[in-house]
Amino acid sequence: MSQNSSDKIPVGILGATGMVGQQYISLLNDHPWFEVRFAAASPRSAGKKYKDAVAGRWQLTKTYAPHVADIMVEDANDVNRAIDAFKKGGCSFVFSALEMSKDETKALEEQYAAAGIPVISNASAHRWTDDVPVLIAEVNPEHTDIIPLQKKERGWDRGFIAVKPNCSIQSYMKPIHALVKAGYPAQRLIVHTMQAVSGAGYPGVPSLDMIDNIVPYIGGEEEKSEKEPLKIFGSINGNVFKNAELPIISAHCNRVPVIDGHTACVSLEFAGKKPSSMEEIKKIWADYKGLPQEADFPFAPKQPIIYREEDNRPQPRKDRDADKAMAVVIGRLRQCNVFDIRFVALSHNTVRGAAGGGILNAELLKHKGYL
Amino acid sequence: MSQNSSDKIPVGILGATGMVGQQYISLLNDHPWFEVRFAAASPRSAGKKYKDAVAGRWQLTKTYAPHVADIMVEDANDVNRAIDAFKKGGCSFVFSALEMSKDETKALEEQYAAAGIPVISNASAHRWTDDVPVLIAEVNPEHTDIIPLQKKERGWDRGFIAVKPNCSIQSYMKPIHALVKAGYPAQRLIVHTMQAVSGAGYPGVPSLDMIDNIVPYIGGEEEKSEKEPLKIFGSINGNVFKNAELPIISAHCNRVPVIDGHTACVSLEFAGKKPSSMEEIKKIWADYKGLPQEADFPFAPKQPIIYREEDNRPQPRKDRDADKAMAVVIGRLRQCNVFDIRFVALSHNTVRGAAGGGILNAELLKHKGYL
Amino acid sequence: MSQNSSDKIPVGILGATGMVGQQYISLLNDHPWFEVRFAAASPRSAGKKYKDAVAGRWQLTKTYAPHVADIMVEDANDVNRAIDAFKKGGCSFVFSALEMSKDETKALEEQYAAAGIPVISNASAHRWTDDVPVLIAEVNPEHTDIIPLQKKERGWDRGFIAVKPNCSIQSYMKPIHALVKAGYPAQRLIVHTMQAVSGAGYPGVPSLDMIDNIVPYIGGEEEKSEKEPLKIFGSINGNVFKNAELPIISAHCNRVPVIDGHTACVSLEFAGKKPSSMEEIKKIWADYKGLPQEADFPFAPKQPIIYREEDNRPQPRKDRDADKAMAVVIGRLRQCNVFDIRFVALSHNTVRGAAGGGILNAELLKHKGYL
Amino acid sequence: MSQNSSDKIPVGILGATGMVGQQYISLLNDHPWFEVRFAAASPRSAGKKYKDAVAGRWQLTKTYAPHVADIMVEDANDVNRAIDAFKKGGCSFVFSALEMSKDETKALEEQYAAAGIPVISNASAHRWTDDVPVLIAEVNPEHTDIIPLQKKERGWDRGFIAVKPNCSIQSYMKPIHALVKAGYPAQRLIVHTMQAVSGAGYPGVPSLDMIDNIVPYIGGEEEKSEKEPLKIFGSINGNVFKNAELPIISAHCNRVPVIDGHTACVSLEFAGKKPSSMEEIKKIWADYKGLPQEADFPFAPKQPIIYREEDNRPQPRKDRDADKAMAVVIGRLRQCNVFDIRFVALSHNTVRGAAGGGILNAELLKHKGYL
Repeated sequence: MSQNSSDKIPVGILGATGMVGQQYISLLNDHPWFEVRFAAASPRSAGKKYKDAVAGRWQLTKTYAPHVADIMVEDANDVNRAIDAFKKGGCSFVFSALEMSKDETKALEEQYAAAGIPVISNASAHRWTDDVPVLIAEVNPEHTDIIPLQKKERGWDRGFIAVKPNCSIQSYMKPIHALVKAGYPAQRLIVHTMQAVSGAGYPGVPSLDMIDNIVPYIGGEEEKSEKEPLKIFGSINGNVFKNAELPIISAHCNRVPVIDGHTACVSLEFAGKKPSSMEEIKKIWADYKGLPQEADFPFAPKQPIIYREEDNRPQPRKDRDADKAMAVVIGRLRQCNVFDIRFVALSHNTVRGAAGGGILNAELLKHKGYL
Repeated sequence: MSQNSSDKIPVGILGATGMVGQQYISLLNDHPWFEVRFAAASPRSAGKKYKDAVAGRWQLTKTYAPHVADIMVEDANDVNRAIDAFKKGGCSFVFSALEMSKDETKALEEQYAAAGIPVISNASAHRWTDDVPVLIAEVNPEHTDIIPLQKKERGWDRGFIAVKPNCSIQSYMKPIHALVKAGYPAQRLIVHTMQAVSGAGYPGVPSLDMIDNIVPYIGGEEEKSEKEPLKIFGSINGNVFKNAELPIISAHCNRVPVIDGHTACVSLEFAGKKPSSMEEIKKIWADYKGLPQEADFPFAPKQPIIYREEDNRPQPRKDRDADKAMAVVIGRLRQCNVFDIRFVALSHNTVRGAAGGGILNAELLKHKGYL
Repeated sequence: MSQNSSDKIPVGILGATGMVGQQYISLLNDHPWFEVRFAAASPRSAGKKYKDAVAGRWQLTKTYAPHVADIMVEDANDVNRAIDAFKKGGCSFVFSALEMSKDETKALEEQYAAAGIPVISNASAHRWTDDVPVLIAEVNPEHTDIIPLQKKERGWDRGFIAVKPNCSIQSYMKPIHALVKAGYPAQRLIVHTMQAVSGAGYPGVPSLDMIDNIVPYIGGEEEKSEKEPLKIFGSINGNVFKNAELPIISAHCNRVPVIDGHTACVSLEFAGKKPSSMEEIKKIWADYKGLPQEADFPFAPKQPIIYREEDNRPQPRKDRDADKAMAVVIGRLRQCNVFDIRFVALSHNTVRGAAGGGILNAELLKHKGYL
Repeated sequence: MSQNSSDKIPVGILGATGMVGQQYISLLNDHPWFEVRFAAASPRSAGKKYKDAVAGRWQLTKTYAPHVADIMVEDANDVNRAIDAFKKGGCSFVFSALEMSKDETKALEEQYAAAGIPVISNASAHRWTDDVPVLIAEVNPEHTDIIPLQKKERGWDRGFIAVKPNCSIQSYMKPIHALVKAGYPAQRLIVHTMQAVSGAGYPGVPSLDMIDNIVPYIGGEEEKSEKEPLKIFGSINGNVFKNAELPIISAHCNRVPVIDGHTACVSLEFAGKKPSSMEEIKKIWADYKGLPQEADFPFAPKQPIIYREEDNRPQPRKDRDADKAMAVVIGRLRQCNVFDIRFVALSHNTVRGAAGGGILNAELLKHKGYL
């Protein structure tokens, strides 16, 4: 940490010892705004120093910051005690990387929010709660406007819940949004994903399924990939979200032997007007910027969509780390025989699609004054 | 060879030392009708015994028959000499597994045919020659009717050329054909393939591209996948083929770290009437039979389409070898949000999709009296 | 089953639904002597038909025999009831593929033996029980002589326990034994293994550890690899085994991204006299035969040690299936700068090293009159 | 480049478009002392801008610096013209990453040296030239003392040749050297390597050999692994090197499906006195420093040997990038049943073992005043 740590906002991690939790810890090592000072996890880790709780279970190449090593891990389920510790540490909000059942996660996140703690979550539990925004910072930053309504309705003062969508849709939401902004909304999409094993956590996918093999199924993933975009493209109606009706999406989700990086092959039909050429589309993507770029958030990729002209890109190992692993890399834009266009899009699932996306959401919420 | 070899039809292999040639040699080890007695390859192998020509280059687990070991390999390009050797050996026809340029292959296959030798080819060179049938034995056996016209037009007496289609389309042509036969032709298809590295031969795809990676591109493969079905579903018009107009296909072809077995994710829109239920479709597939099954050809899978009810099948390593690696294995039939149905289909690319498919075509041509 | 099943000896499998149990079921499909008629497993599977107990969990390409599908699975822990069912089925002995704790396995195998049921085990529990033989059928068939002593000492009439050693040592025990028989015992060995993931069962090794990675550690494996050979090369002393003192072994065991097939790199120092040449050693290996070959047991490889002259063999994917996956394949015999010789040896870990080795042991015990 | 580029020493790369050349370009992006201003490669690339010469062939995740993109690539074989361009660019020395035959490389490197250009080479061509030092900067920095003798003998004024050893030995040379310095030289070593595919360049190892497989052979690698350490541990005798006699090494080299990172399993016998405990050895390794650390070279790892206490480390994917991929990571130090100790060591083969090691050698030579 090159900067004086006292300038930074102290934050906590729920589920700090799991794979997404480790990503948060690692990515926040040198964050200019935030600093991890609180960690909660399962009873197995509770009462241990963070370094001891993850000994032999740390999955990442990059390690944790020295000051994180000695954080005493709380039991995430022992809410009152954990919230006490959180507040004693002067923390401001938590990133939730909980890996419990949906009902447990929902309840726990609500308890933290009710205690005045903003919860920025990676978990899927609250994605379909109708007053909880599902944020991609470049795509729907205005969905944060629901937060005052959410707080009021639930009687929460400072706490609230905001979530990020599933990692499988990250690669194609931004290019589609860029086209929407340029006046070319999509009518129908057929999307085929080839998803990395890190998406399933650790131990996750057995190696017996991933050597000389692929698995054409990921439980629940197709439904999420088809429905979540409609909420993200939706609007606030009263104090809840109303889904968009388009695009209609059909998703085929597959697991492939790749460590990090979800690849999507997309065939797209425009709803109305069509771009005049492939070059126009590439220009739209190259020019695409959102609030994270305009306000220069620390985790914002300079160029959210990178187009590569080579025949055989993007490829997960070669392109996933583009711009701090926060950019989407696209290639192979060409005419579709059946719809209008087709292309291949890639996004780093455990950075942009998980902890990095969560941090960017926190930067957005900080910028908007909610933290 | 349990059987007296003198009962069998002696056959030759062009390109006998390459990867597809090896597959032919290996699969014909115990064939009840055919026996390899002639092998031609590149000048490098010419003049050597087969066992010496493949020493250190044999790629398969299963080895070649003892009598093949001592076949003296001819230079495939030294056509007159090779044809002499072929005829001295009393051979009846050749399987072509040539790996030359398209023009060289075309010319060479025509020279053999002109010399009175039927050529059953795996090469793509003649797939778009308008009087050459592209055969999948269950799907379009009636396309062999072009052969007398081809011979007459070209002034060939006994020789002719028949080819098989690209390996990438094998997995979905039979299920689609089954639906056509049941009165449910397809209007549009979006197909996404995840193809095995053996499809690129040896050395083929570098390991640096296939460890922790996939490559979303295979040169020329999408065009073949989109056009070849139209010839196969087409009809004889005068003495040439006329393509079908449907289905319109958009293909996304990817290379994945799998040894053998191409997997396809298919979204399908029916042209007219639709099946009443998923159960009806499964029944259509289960009941699907073609001439190979009716006439009980040696290489015919008993059941050409095997449907698996598990959520996560077919998988290449577990399903590619179904019924001698000649069956198509399908799973995950479900409604498509955008079209009518979607499903996953798998076929062994170097057996059903290459040498095994060629042998089945030879069995068809023998049955029809052309060999 | 081509043969009338009533001619065959009915046998049972303990742990029938696990990965090794599945291998037993699959390998015994067409066994000329034995036929599976009894299956016991964990309470989760108990009371189900075998086909239902393994639905969605069957790991192998080859499936189970039709008559096995309907076997009602017993609870292996409900010993009295299981033994009743076993005896009602007229079964003769059990293969044990139990995957419980060591103490549970030990106790359970003893209960079956005490009930008069011979137990031929894959489990490691009884490998260091001093009156239990650890058998490699070619290497120490005479160790079956302990069985009468074991029965007498323990007061068992028909039942007894015989086990097979760890899969990691299969590849080098036979070549070393061949040298011992030829008068060239080994003094010291440094062995380095690269072991397949199937050795860890399912789910076993996480894919996150086996993509772009190897793991230089397998818990307990080095100790087993160093000690078990000494019992196998040992002798019966009174009514217990006395270990051999040589060879002294140092093992480095690694997990690599291979489905099946353990590879070992061996440096060997002879204890006394040395072979005159590499050619002499190759001849010793080529000529090596044991009782399984002499008596022509169904699962015996015709040639237990196959030597390949290529520079770069053996390789797991290409060589593991040699001779029904029961042969050891060796290559790269050359001088060692430090000891006398070095070579690479390969054995199929779930066939020769597990169920196939167990079946060969049963054939040995049947031949010797113990079943 | 944060720094004014005019402060830096301009350098050239021979073989700049190959895989090692790309590594040099990439690693030198932000080097505080050196800046790439000259690139030579094969005729195919000559006359093109660097960015065009590597278009579609760039293998690395990290890209090249903007100013490198426009360097005009020279034909490395057109020596006079290339040397002219080199000198016009005011360059000081070249890194040689040539991928030609041994004889061509030898001749070409000598031509550059004769023209007054120091050549710091990755190629193996001159490793056994008796007046050329083979440098590992921490281990034998004093071997640079041969350079004045080399120049004088050959009549070169400013030019000279210095090389680095094979990537396979990097992981164990430093731990062994640390023990030598502490008074515990090794007598005998049996080393088993599991080497990454990047060591074979691109296209390099076919994926058909690296999916569900390992290859127990790398041409020439075992000989290099056994002999090069003796030169490195040797001494200057007159104006040539005299090899050390110890340690005697026996190497087993294997190719495994890993992108980067060579792992070695080592069994070691001490020549004389032995360390009193494993703890003493770990302390020796932890305390090990060389000239690169003492003089704080930019590419020097802070701690050249990192010991990990976990049972199952080092692992290539998790440990290869330790300290800029320049540190050796060791684990599993334990007693050897046959020799004295055994351990596992890991080094990044294309950074520490190739371009990174070359850059560290250049830093050493700069520090010593030879550049």
